[in-house]
Amino acid sequence: MRTTREVRVVRRPEGGLRESDLEVVETAVPALRDGQVLVRTTHHSVDAAVRLRLDPVSPPGYLPAFELGAGIEGLAVGTVLESRADGFAVGDLVQHARGYRELAVVEARGAALGGAGMLARLDPTLAPPQVHVGLLGGTGLTAWAGIVAVARAQPGETVWVSAAAGAVGSVAAQLARARGCRVVGSAGGPEKVAYLLDHLHLDAAFDYRAGLTAGLETAAPDGVDVYFDNVGGDHLAAALDHLRPFGRVALCGAIAGYDTEPAPGPHNLFQATSKNLTLQGFRAGAHAARADEARAELAGLWRDGRLRLDVASYAGLDLAPRAIVDLLAGRTRGKCVVETTEPADGD
Amino acid sequence: MRTTREVRVVRRPEGGLRESDLEVVETAVPALRDGQVLVRTTHHSVDAAVRLRLDPVSPPGYLPAFELGAGIEGLAVGTVLESRADGFAVGDLVQHARGYRELAVVEARGAALGGAGMLARLDPTLAPPQVHVGLLGGTGLTAWAGIVAVARAQPGETVWVSAAAGAVGSVAAQLARARGCRVVGSAGGPEKVAYLLDHLHLDAAFDYRAGLTAGLETAAPDGVDVYFDNVGGDHLAAALDHLRPFGRVALCGAIAGYDTEPAPGPHNLFQATSKNLTLQGFRAGAHAARADEARAELAGLWRDGRLRLDVASYAGLDLAPRAIVDLLAGRTRGKCVVETTEPADGD
Repeated sequence: MRTTREVRVVRRPEGGLRESDLEVVETAVPALRDGQVLVRTTHHSVDAAVRLRLDPVSPPGYLPAFELGAGIEGLAVGTVLESRADGFAVGDLVQHARGYRELAVVEARGAALGGAGMLARLDPTLAPPQVHVGLLGGTGLTAWAGIVAVARAQPGETVWVSAAAGAVGSVAAQLARARGCRVVGSAGGPEKVAYLLDHLHLDAAFDYRAGLTAGLETAAPDGVDVYFDNVGGDHLAAALDHLRPFGRVALCGAIAGYDTEPAPGPHNLFQATSKNLTLQGFRAGAHAARADEARAELAGLWRDGRLRLDVASYAGLDLAPRAIVDLLAGRTRGKCVVETTEPADGD
Repeated sequence: MRTTREVRVVRRPEGGLRESDLEVVETAVPALRDGQVLVRTTHHSVDAAVRLRLDPVSPPGYLPAFELGAGIEGLAVGTVLESRADGFAVGDLVQHARGYRELAVVEARGAALGGAGMLARLDPTLAPPQVHVGLLGGTGLTAWAGIVAVARAQPGETVWVSAAAGAVGSVAAQLARARGCRVVGSAGGPEKVAYLLDHLHLDAAFDYRAGLTAGLETAAPDGVDVYFDNVGGDHLAAALDHLRPFGRVALCGAIAGYDTEPAPGPHNLFQATSKNLTLQGFRAGAHAARADEARAELAGLWRDGRLRLDVASYAGLDLAPRAIVDLLAGRTRGKCVVETTEPADGD
């Protein structure tokens, strides 16, 4: 019988996740049934949302919590090894939602984002697999949904992106800039700020640890039209004070609250009423109908060298627990990926 | 020289407003200049937002704070006594923003809501003045903007309106019901709840003092699609937990925070991201382009007996300070109005 290795939950984290809360174990690969494909996964997307499913109950709107002792899952990219599903052939490049295992049996139902196995064929001529897993995957689609579909950022507007050195943030910031906005990025520490200015070429950047309000006022003295929120808490409160009338906030999630207590809500939400502001929470899956449009724009900018997404790569599934912990602790820059390129046992 | 009486600020309130913070004084009426009209005001709208202008600095997006010792202002309805402005004739029924004085000199510039004097002719065939000041005035236009333009409530959806026994809340709730929604109202105390059920004929109602979350879950066991927020704080947090995916919140302002400290922000704003929720702050002035459409719908429902707005009427300008204090303390039901129908001295 064919075997693979997968990441499992040993115990539920108490407070911050520790590597020892997870383990990598060998397990049997079941035989394919009709409607399924077997994928050799090469690139596993490490996303903060996996932390939400490690709690006993995941928040409403998210997939259910992982069972204790069972394997975890995440978005991933790989190549079809066997297929018993219409529309999928051996050798196809695909994305699916059964990452964190080298060989994955995936249901072909629900090809669109949000479906069961979330299996979908990818266009290998658009970009190589490592670009599909991040820039053209959940990371890029989330950034695109927030800037284009949710915030509707217009040329000439000022856009503030928090956690702009992170994966989603860095794509959102560059995308807004490519669309003609003036873009301000914030991050923690002078090294990340230098990265925003020197490598992502944002119009302005500041270190929130050196003073959030002062940094924002200096970088955007005339206020901001759009705030792309990756942080919540004090950042969102500063945005509410600093948004112009009819400003928009794209609420992308507050990674700061995933591994600890949620950040307190903004004390100044009354600004939304007085300034006619819109705060819209969103997940990429809700905008799946525009995924092809998004991928085409992102891939075009990537080919033109106007959009980059650095990858923090961890080689081999054994490093997956460390990759997740590093991501949640803010120790990674750009897209966090676990690569499992070596052939699995017996293939 | 013609005189009138007006309400002035004696001292800035410390914490809750007291009647003695305001006074009613006799003052001269200046001669009309070109572009101005003289209005005998008969109905003064008492709105919670007046409290915001009594602080030393009013919030961004609002009109400036009132000067110490100067007259206060508010939306009002009256009849033109003299006119030196094109488009306004003696006898015209008008609204303007120079309420809290019996005779008002009003600039004709900026006829649309949001303009300087906010002077606008009203259609007397639509409804009598006491309906124009509330149901077809700022109260009704705010309710309409929140339900129709902001929340886009659809037939069959479940709508929760907080402070539903208040002026804006009661119109919002009845309007949503007239548009085919299932409407849940909340208020403080069993008397108000009985009013919501027996007089406004809402589908369900609950007393938040007897248990906010339990009341909401009983009244709307399948969740809500739209929350019309007049309260903020714990009400908004309960809504975020109870909204269905893609739900909308119309943030109409949080009267609870005007006279005291602002309510804390919701601790669970992450629900907006996980459930793709939209929170949109709004003021009626931002939707002035649709005011005629709104007034026509509201007046039609009023004539058909499907929309009522009880009026808490205070007779004479001397009672204006008490009316404002009562409104802020939650002691009024429906629309709070000061009526000054007797002719001013010398006319």
